[in-house]
Amino acid sequence: MFSKIAIIGVGLLGGSVGLAVRRTWSACRVVGIGRNATTLETAKQIGAVHEFSLSITDGTAGCELIVVCTPVGSIAEHVILAAEGAKPQAKHTAQTVSPIITDVGSTKQWICETLEKRFPLANNCRFLGGHPIAGSEKNGVAAASETLFNNRAVVLTPTASTFPETTKALRRFWESLGANVICLNAEEHDRLLARTSHLPHAVSAALAKISDYKIYGELCGSGFQSVSRLAAGSPEIWLDIFLSNRDALLSSLNDFDQSCRQLRNALENNDASAILQFLNDARKNVSPL
Amino acid sequence: MFSKIAIIGVGLLGGSVGLAVRRTWSACRVVGIGRNATTLETAKQIGAVHEFSLSITDGTAGCELIVVCTPVGSIAEHVILAAEGAKPQAKHTAQTVSPIITDVGSTKQWICETLEKRFPLANNCRFLGGHPIAGSEKNGVAAASETLFNNRAVVLTPTASTFPETTKALRRFWESLGANVICLNAEEHDRLLARTSHLPHAVSAALAKISDYKIYGELCGSGFQSVSRLAAGSPEIWLDIFLSNRDALLSSLNDFDQSCRQLRNALENNDASAILQFLNDARKNVSPL
Repeated sequence: MFSKIAIIGVGLLGGSVGLAVRRTWSACRVVGIGRNATTLETAKQIGAVHEFSLSITDGTAGCELIVVCTPVGSIAEHVILAAEGAKPQAKHTAQTVSPIITDVGSTKQWICETLEKRFPLANNCRFLGGHPIAGSEKNGVAAASETLFNNRAVVLTPTASTFPETTKALRRFWESLGANVICLNAEEHDRLLARTSHLPHAVSAALAKISDYKIYGELCGSGFQSVSRLAAGSPEIWLDIFLSNRDALLSSLNDFDQSCRQLRNALENNDASAILQFLNDARKNVSPL
Repeated sequence: MFSKIAIIGVGLLGGSVGLAVRRTWSACRVVGIGRNATTLETAKQIGAVHEFSLSITDGTAGCELIVVCTPVGSIAEHVILAAEGAKPQAKHTAQTVSPIITDVGSTKQWICETLEKRFPLANNCRFLGGHPIAGSEKNGVAAASETLFNNRAVVLTPTASTFPETTKALRRFWESLGANVICLNAEEHDRLLARTSHLPHAVSAALAKISDYKIYGELCGSGFQSVSRLAAGSPEIWLDIFLSNRDALLSSLNDFDQSCRQLRNALENNDASAILQFLNDARKNVSPL
């Protein structure tokens, strides 16, 4: 499918892309790119990459697919650098294929709009935004897994300037790694993800903020841990996500505030039937266990 | 330790008590008591009880320990009925021991105060409130596990009228099932559990209330599931818990509202350093993964 791909940022997601690619496409050469040689050495040792580079422009040379897995705030810049480096090194049998660049960023509108303004990218590269709905509160390549994308959704966000064959190629790529591909426009993606991902993270952090585990300790059961564990995620990564999807997140937080207020009112009024109705409505909305 | 015990309400917790007792004290006879013969038959088949009864006063006859595992709103009434049934049937070698009645209710102040007003209980029974910090969003005896209490805290809430030997006996009992016993007064228990258990449940329900899984479907990742899954718990059980710990829960919800407001303000002001500080503070408070 691709004979050589580069992964920029080899953490949980980037490392998992590398492991899944190598399991699925054993002939494909995988280059890891990052700032930290120790991390990249670990990625090589666990088999996520064949080789690595500390330079985006060096590492992407000759790559047909480049997956940018850095934090949301750095992605646009890294895509531009990757395009500059992605000089074709070998001719394909039929034709020279334009390198494809994609990303795994949790927000899409800001990234896609920033990059559209920079089109065309160097070396005839084609960018298409992506977002696998897969992850963990764990960070780093040590937590990477070749099955991370199995049966998970990957959203692609084509725009009016996206070539259909780019979408088709990336769809095939993610499906080959076990994922289900969904196409959405970037704004719609961000509005939906504010509700399904960024709001739960904010709620988890807001709970953790007022709950010192060292004080409450053994009285924290599995319920507390389940709600608060997201707050263990990287603050820097989530800062980028929150800032780049601020309006949609604020709107979701507002809806959530109304929901909390409804429950508080029912409690303040000692209104058993309203509380029961609230809990029943909530239960109906929960994903099948 | 006890030659015969009764469990009133053989669901997740009651069934787990039965399984753990039978694993630990093979000579102890376990009687299950409930309203539903089919459920009790299941409990017998999975080995949680030796026999069962549909009557509290019949089933508790001759029992030295009675563990009430019904919803919070029914516990006080079931303790009183259990005491009436708990007539000693056989003499111990040294002396006739007063039967002990305990419970596993998630709130303690209302139950303990209600029962103190009814002391002394029939047949010289002694009541001491208990609460294992163990559970799941799963319900029913089919989810019961003999290891549910392993390394989990069990809170006992002795009052001025509790006999020290009752506390000692129940401490030994729960420790023999693998738990760590903590003694707190009932009010303190309820205030702390509002924060560590009832607030997370309310937050989970408030999120689920506005998040229809059928609409958001595949875009709900593991973070969403982690925060919202508590809302799958039984609405009836949680209604009782919320109503019996209303003031402490409202106070916790108020603290949580302030925490959300702080994050919203930082977002509204586009204040990156305040958001980062918030996320870092939250992360520090989270239990070790």
